[in-house]
Amino acid sequence: MPKVFDQELGALKQAVLTMGETAEQMIRDSMKALVDRDEKLIAEVQQKEEVTDRLQVAIDDHVVRLIVTHAPVAQDLRFLLMVARINTELERVGDQAVEICHNVKLLLGVPPLKPLASLPNMAELAVRMVHGAVQAFSEKSPDRALGIIREDDQVDALNDQIFRDLLTYMMSDPKNIPRALALILTARSLERIADHATNICEEVVYLVKGQDIRHQSRQSTVDS
Amino acid sequence: MPKVFDQELGALKQAVLTMGETAEQMIRDSMKALVDRDEKLIAEVQQKEEVTDRLQVAIDDHVVRLIVTHAPVAQDLRFLLMVARINTELERVGDQAVEICHNVKLLLGVPPLKPLASLPNMAELAVRMVHGAVQAFSEKSPDRALGIIREDDQVDALNDQIFRDLLTYMMSDPKNIPRALALILTARSLERIADHATNICEEVVYLVKGQDIRHQSRQSTVDS
Repeated sequence: MPKVFDQELGALKQAVLTMGETAEQMIRDSMKALVDRDEKLIAEVQQKEEVTDRLQVAIDDHVVRLIVTHAPVAQDLRFLLMVARINTELERVGDQAVEICHNVKLLLGVPPLKPLASLPNMAELAVRMVHGAVQAFSEKSPDRALGIIREDDQVDALNDQIFRDLLTYMMSDPKNIPRALALILTARSLERIADHATNICEEVVYLVKGQDIRHQSRQSTVDS
Repeated sequence: MPKVFDQELGALKQAVLTMGETAEQMIRDSMKALVDRDEKLIAEVQQKEEVTDRLQVAIDDHVVRLIVTHAPVAQDLRFLLMVARINTELERVGDQAVEICHNVKLLLGVPPLKPLASLPNMAELAVRMVHGAVQAFSEKSPDRALGIIREDDQVDALNDQIFRDLLTYMMSDPKNIPRALALILTARSLERIADHATNICEEVVYLVKGQDIRHQSRQSTVDS
């Protein structure tokens, strides 16, 4: 492959890393808005959504242009297709951060239901998974990717625990229902973010080992 | 392009249509399980999930093989990349049908909370959107695709209405909460299915008109 193609691949990889960092920051900001009860951070998440939207289109266009102009061989082609998919996953991570903000907005209009307990931990874990997934992509490391995939069980367990806890709040007093529901949906968004990180990791394993693990490692996510 | 390539493209398109029909049937069966209180249909949805999982891998492999062996030009290449994306969307439609089944299982273990009212209508609309999206892909019709995209607003409106209705049930009696929650999550799954259909339509418009509408037509989905 000519040197210019390698440079282009490098630039593309850098764009994916930027996309990953932006998505991570969106999760952090949406959760910080909730914890610090700081509505200004919601506007920042919305601004960053525009950034990820633009980046997503630019990365997709770049992938197509590289395939058309360089007609890459199998391994490079698989890499480019993987970039296109990871791109979609990261954009959806950002979308979930925006969904969290919708619920946070509702929560900031009323007094807190209770101390947040496990929710910030769950967010921290989800951010770490997204970060690790993008790193695994950057280093083309299936081992790192498999390590991240295993963390998804912890996120699911936290989600179940938060759900059950909030359910008891709802049952004990109807006034708690809207707030408890907003917190349940926030936890579900975090769980979906962890799923997107898992999807990215499965792509990395697939690329490097040529092994499709998508429908082996993925557990269906039960809501109740 | 040689004739063999056209035949291959035809086979690939057929596989996507099969994937679409299977996903549609999964939504129908999951909703029929709820309406008819028929648990047997849940097992059918789970079996069909294995079918869509296998099909997804086969379609992806086919796309990569065609790009590698035929080095298609820009338009065909964009078509193949679109197939890969639509494939992912349809697999996620199936995943949401499975999520619905988790909630239906819970609902079938207890007496009905209330007549289902709008939920089956919402499901019917979501099925129609998925069907129309796959048809728009099959016919490469951006007009049809744009028509489907407009239906998404109806789904969102139904989702909001169902949410508010069930919220009042929750508030009026804590005993209603688990069932109302399962119904709210079912509606959310249907709303996500409609989003996947919208994504497919946006791909079709993008392919045919070369115009990226992904971040213009998509409204963020508010939960509350």
